[in-house]
Amino acid sequence: MISGVLLDLAGVIYDGKAAVPGATGAVARLREAGLPVRFISNTTRSPKQAVLDQLDKLGLPVTDGELFTPAHAACEWLRQHHRSPHLLVHPDLVRDFHDLADSEGLAVIVGDAGEAFDYPALNNAFRALIAGAEFVALAPNRTFKDADGKLSLDAGPFVTALEFASQRDAIVLGKPAPAFFLSALASMNCPPSQAVMIGDDAETDVAGALAAGLGQALLVRTGKYRPGDEDRFKPPPTATVDDIAAAIDWIVATRRSEATQPLL
Amino acid sequence: MISGVLLDLAGVIYDGKAAVPGATGAVARLREAGLPVRFISNTTRSPKQAVLDQLDKLGLPVTDGELFTPAHAACEWLRQHHRSPHLLVHPDLVRDFHDLADSEGLAVIVGDAGEAFDYPALNNAFRALIAGAEFVALAPNRTFKDADGKLSLDAGPFVTALEFASQRDAIVLGKPAPAFFLSALASMNCPPSQAVMIGDDAETDVAGALAAGLGQALLVRTGKYRPGDEDRFKPPPTATVDDIAAAIDWIVATRRSEATQPLL
Repeated sequence: MISGVLLDLAGVIYDGKAAVPGATGAVARLREAGLPVRFISNTTRSPKQAVLDQLDKLGLPVTDGELFTPAHAACEWLRQHHRSPHLLVHPDLVRDFHDLADSEGLAVIVGDAGEAFDYPALNNAFRALIAGAEFVALAPNRTFKDADGKLSLDAGPFVTALEFASQRDAIVLGKPAPAFFLSALASMNCPPSQAVMIGDDAETDVAGALAAGLGQALLVRTGKYRPGDEDRFKPPPTATVDDIAAAIDWIVATRRSEATQPLL
Repeated sequence: MISGVLLDLAGVIYDGKAAVPGATGAVARLREAGLPVRFISNTTRSPKQAVLDQLDKLGLPVTDGELFTPAHAACEWLRQHHRSPHLLVHPDLVRDFHDLADSEGLAVIVGDAGEAFDYPALNNAFRALIAGAEFVALAPNRTFKDADGKLSLDAGPFVTALEFASQRDAIVLGKPAPAFFLSALASMNCPPSQAVMIGDDAETDVAGALAAGLGQALLVRTGKYRPGDEDRFKPPPTATVDDIAAAIDWIVATRRSEATQPLL
């Protein structure tokens, strides 16, 4: 029985600044069906409030508690571990890190810094790591679909570079970290086996969700999707569909068939 | 029987702009002993002529044919494979890539670009790779000892970043590529089993040389060496010694004991 839905944002709900066609209506149908929804994004170029504002502009109001971002998870992590952040993130994301003065040491926090990924910043982060700082990655994504429609380097390659140089493994807080999926599900009281994840990243969204124990994960052919992605990572998607509207059709149809099946 | 010696440069012969104490005399002793020597460097921030000029200034004249650099190997590779270079290298190294017009396509060439490793340059290289360009790394070194005495990011982390993003493996041309060691040995007609490599990088110099079939590899405690390096990579060094002078002492003593042993 499907009883909760997790939605990726970039490449699923919007593409650049525009909504993916049918996305607003599709989310409205989910809400009308009474299915709880959470939005779970690895995008780390914008602060949380800017993401909420963008969704609002698209006619898709989302509350603060419905949106899960890696920066929010990182602030929780920093507080729990009493660390100050050494930020290697996009300048716009810095505002999401505040009130973190209580500190027993540093943690290097790597997000998708974009143009801020330059040699001095990367080298400073490397030096902090070999001096003993903790190592936290907001997201391990390889690529994202850039404003020009082409793929560009996401945070993952830079996390990997620092891992290789420091010979240490980063703690990943965004997708595909199981805790990230599970905290979103916990907030709507949805058991993982009854949840569906919808994303355009076959690796972090889909394979990540299934590895975390979610019952289903749908891959959409929008955003960064490239033909063959459904076969590139394991576990493979439960289904691959054209877009968010088709994904919601799939969920509605699956729930209907579940409802009409006799209980065993 | 030792019949040839390969010497790393940065961290072994010189440290920054100054010679490692005893280095000039040590190389002179090798030459006096009639042992052929080749210099084999993964440094890719300077063109070959600048390296030769620097050695000359230190009172250590080396001929063009005695110095092996990854850029030289890359030019050979580009000619053999009829590719034009898409360079992601230090601006000073560009002059080592010329007369390469004959082309059946591109090859991304990654060296230690230093400050030229910025987001746009890395992203352009990534896009060339996913568009089908060949992928060549001059060197996979993790770190080097920088002018301020601290470790800094070398080319390897950036090669790894591009490998992770493109999901492809780079062809490595510098150390520890066996062909790089073997071409230097071939130029002095020295069988690998009779060769000694001396370096400060336990991974690319020492483990790399031994994996390529060299008989011995000595790790020096100068340059980028950090305590424990001798145990960090496999195979471990034949011996770990204080510096180049101690390494030459080791070679002279080993040859003497070999010469006095009865033939079996």
